[in-house]
Amino acid sequence: MIQPKVLKGFRDSVPSQEIIKKQVISTLERDFSLHGFVPIDTPVLEYTEVLLGKGGGETDKQIFHFADNGGRDVALRFDLTVPFARFMAGHLNELALPFKRFHIAKVWRGENPQKGRFREFFQCDFDIVGIDSAYADIEILSMMHSALSSLGLQRFTIRVAHRGLFNAFLSHIGCLAQSVEILRIVDKLRKIGSAEVESQLQEITKSPQAATAILSYIDAESSDDPLETLSVLSALAGGEQEHTQRMRTIFSMLGQLGIAGNFSIDPSITRGLDYYTGVVYETFLDDLPEIGSICSGGRYNDLASLYTKEHLPGVGSSIGLDRLLAALEELDSPLIQDVASSDVIILNQNENHRYHYHRVAAQLRESGVRCDVYIADKKQVAQFKYAEQNRIPYAILFSEEDVLRGTCTLRHLATRNDMPDLTLSQVVENIERTR
Amino acid sequence: MIQPKVLKGFRDSVPSQEIIKKQVISTLERDFSLHGFVPIDTPVLEYTEVLLGKGGGETDKQIFHFADNGGRDVALRFDLTVPFARFMAGHLNELALPFKRFHIAKVWRGENPQKGRFREFFQCDFDIVGIDSAYADIEILSMMHSALSSLGLQRFTIRVAHRGLFNAFLSHIGCLAQSVEILRIVDKLRKIGSAEVESQLQEITKSPQAATAILSYIDAESSDDPLETLSVLSALAGGEQEHTQRMRTIFSMLGQLGIAGNFSIDPSITRGLDYYTGVVYETFLDDLPEIGSICSGGRYNDLASLYTKEHLPGVGSSIGLDRLLAALEELDSPLIQDVASSDVIILNQNENHRYHYHRVAAQLRESGVRCDVYIADKKQVAQFKYAEQNRIPYAILFSEEDVLRGTCTLRHLATRNDMPDLTLSQVVENIERTR
Repeated sequence: MIQPKVLKGFRDSVPSQEIIKKQVISTLERDFSLHGFVPIDTPVLEYTEVLLGKGGGETDKQIFHFADNGGRDVALRFDLTVPFARFMAGHLNELALPFKRFHIAKVWRGENPQKGRFREFFQCDFDIVGIDSAYADIEILSMMHSALSSLGLQRFTIRVAHRGLFNAFLSHIGCLAQSVEILRIVDKLRKIGSAEVESQLQEITKSPQAATAILSYIDAESSDDPLETLSVLSALAGGEQEHTQRMRTIFSMLGQLGIAGNFSIDPSITRGLDYYTGVVYETFLDDLPEIGSICSGGRYNDLASLYTKEHLPGVGSSIGLDRLLAALEELDSPLIQDVASSDVIILNQNENHRYHYHRVAAQLRESGVRCDVYIADKKQVAQFKYAEQNRIPYAILFSEEDVLRGTCTLRHLATRNDMPDLTLSQVVENIERTR
Repeated sequence: MIQPKVLKGFRDSVPSQEIIKKQVISTLERDFSLHGFVPIDTPVLEYTEVLLGKGGGETDKQIFHFADNGGRDVALRFDLTVPFARFMAGHLNELALPFKRFHIAKVWRGENPQKGRFREFFQCDFDIVGIDSAYADIEILSMMHSALSSLGLQRFTIRVAHRGLFNAFLSHIGCLAQSVEILRIVDKLRKIGSAEVESQLQEITKSPQAATAILSYIDAESSDDPLETLSVLSALAGGEQEHTQRMRTIFSMLGQLGIAGNFSIDPSITRGLDYYTGVVYETFLDDLPEIGSICSGGRYNDLASLYTKEHLPGVGSSIGLDRLLAALEELDSPLIQDVASSDVIILNQNENHRYHYHRVAAQLRESGVRCDVYIADKKQVAQFKYAEQNRIPYAILFSEEDVLRGTCTLRHLATRNDMPDLTLSQVVENIERTR
C-alpha cells in the first residue's frame, strides 16, 4: 500500500475550495473580457535558459528545473511575466498592438513553504503592452477597481506612486546613483518601520539630510486631495514635469470615472524591482491591511528585451489569488458561501420510480437547475446526510400520486419546510427565487 | 538575445485559440454542474512513487520525472485518474459517497510528439465513485450525451459494450485465461482490420474455432435495436445473466430519456486496459469517424486500491479536449466562430474626448457589453485595422454634437453600415440583438 501523500508546499483543492476558486476566477475573467482583454496560455515547462536568461552559472535554487529525457535543461515557470515576454517576442507578427492580455494559471517555486506560502500557487496577471500612455495606465487601474468590485469588495485602497517622479526627486537631491538601493529600502517601510528605514538610508546616502528628505518625500501624502499631494511631490522634486503631468491626467480621469475614492497617492510605494519605470501601485483591503497587497504592478519600459529588439513598453498588474481567496473568506464574502454541489436533489424513495427520477432531473437541468439524483438504494437518513454534506438546499420527494400527476413536494432541507403539489415549473421558480 | 522558442511537443495558446478553449471548457463545466458534479484540483507535481506505484525498478520513460531540490523523486502527472485515486484515498473522510467529480486540467507525457499528439495536453475527466449501480452508469452516459449536445454536436454515436459480458462469453468458449491478450487484440480492430485480428486471435487461442467465435461476438451488432443485439450476445455467452440485465436497464433508461438514438451496442469496444470491469464505451462523430473516439471510459471495480483498503467501485469517462477542439473546427461549429476580443470598440477621433470615451466604456461594461477603447493616438485606418485584427464587430464614433447630446454612431464594421444618433441603451440593444 502506498501512502496517498502530496509533496510539501503542494495542496489538493477539495470541492468546497475549488467551487469558490472557479467562481472567483470566472468573475475576474468576465470583468477582464468586458474591458476587451483576451486570454492566452503558455506551456508549464520551458527551456531553463528562456526563463532565467543566459547569464550566471548558478541556476536559481527557487526554480524547479531538471534535464528532460532528451537532455534539455527545462524548468517549471516561476511567474507569468517571463513567459508573457517570451510569448510576445514569438508572436509579434500575429498580434495587434496595443495588446491586452490576461493569464490566470499556476506557477511553481522551490522556496521553503511558510504560513500562507506554497510551492504551487496561482497568479492572475493582466497587461497592456505596446504603448506608453496615461490611458493605458488608467485602463489597468480602473480594471483593478472593477475586478475587485465585481468580487463584492468595496473597502479597498489602490495606493499609487510614480517611479519616474521618485527618481526625479532623487536626482534633485543628488542621490540618483543610489536609487536602486534606496527604493529597496523604502519598499521595506511597512515591514521594518520608518526609524529603521531612516537609519538604512543614512548608511546608503552617507547624508542625514538626504535621509530626512527621502523620508519627507515618501511621507508626503499630506492631503486627501491627490492633486494637492502631487503639487507637494513636484515641489520636492524640483518642479512640474511630464511625470507629474501623467499622474494628474490619471487622477483626474479616476475622478471623472467616479472611482477616485478607492485610490490614493502613496509615495512610499516603490515595488522593489528595477523593472518598473512609471506608475507603480499596491492594493490594500481597508479591513485587512495586515495581509498585505492583494493586487500590485506598474509601468515598465520594455517587456521583452531579452528576446527581441522590438521595444515593448507596457503596464500591468497581478492579483495574488491565494491571498485574495483567504481575504474573501476572512471577510465572510457572499461569494464564499455557496459551495452547494447542486440546487436540488431528487431522493430515492422507490426503486420503481427510477425512470421518473432521471426524466425529471433531465427536465430540471434543461431549465438550468443543478439537479442531483440520489443513486444508491439507501435509507432516507443516509440520503439526507448526503444532501447535507454536499450543502444541497432542496430535496424533491414523490408520492405515488405525484408520479401519476406530474407533481412533487419540494423540501427546504435546513427548515424542513415542505411545499407540496408543485409542478416542475413551480419547482424551478422556487429554486430560482432563492438563488 | 535569447531565441523565444518553446519546447518540442509544447504550444502557446494565442487568444483566438484560448478564447475558444475557454468557451468549450466553461460549456462543459456548466453541464457537469447541472448534473451535480463538483470540481476538484490536484498538484501538477507528485511523488513519482505515488503516480507510478512501487513496483519495477525502471521508471516509465514517458513520464517527466526528476529529483527536486530536496532530493525527492517527483513527476508531472501523466493523467488525471491516478491523482484522483490518490485524492480519494486521502480525502475519504471528508467526502460524501457516491462522489461525483470532474477535473479539467493539463497532463504531460514525454512520448515523441506526432501529428496531433503533444507532450502537454488537456484532459477532461468525470467519474462517479463509491457505488456499483446501473444508475451511475446511466448518469455518466447521459451526461456524455448532454455535454456533447451542449457543444452543439448532434451527429455522434456512443458505442457501448460490457467487459463482464465479454468475459462471460470468453469463459463460455473456454478462452478466459487469454482474456487480457484477446481484448488487446480486439481493441486494435479499427486499426488493423478484422482479417489481422482473426489471425492474431488464432495465434493466441490456438483455435480457429475460438477465433471465429470471437469475431462473430464482436460483430454481433446485428440490429438497430440494442435489446435485440443484447439477446444475441447473451446467447453467445451462454444465456442471460446480471451483465445482460445491467445492459438492458441502461438501454431502457436511455430510451426513456429520449436519447437512445445516439447510443449503440458495439461488442468490439474493449478499451484495452485491464482496469475496466463493467460497461465500456467510446464516442465517434458520425461525420468524422477517422479522428477516433472523442469521449471514452467505463466502469472499474476499484479506483484506489494502491492507496487504501477502502473498496471504491466507480464509472467514468474522459473527453479528449484537443481532439474535440480539432473536430469542432473541422465541423465549422458556431462555437468556433466567435473569437472577437470585444463586442465593440470606441474609436479615438479626438484626444479631447478621452474622458467621454472612458466614461461611456464604463457604462457599456456595466450593461454587460465587452467594450474596448482605442488607446493610442493614431490615424483611423490604424484603428480600423486594430478592430479587424481583433475581430471586433462594431465601432462607436462620436461627433462633437454626439458628445454634447449623449448620442453616438454605431458602425457595423464588416458592412460599414452606420446607425447614427443612438443613445447608449440603443447601442446595448443593437449589440445584444446580434450576439
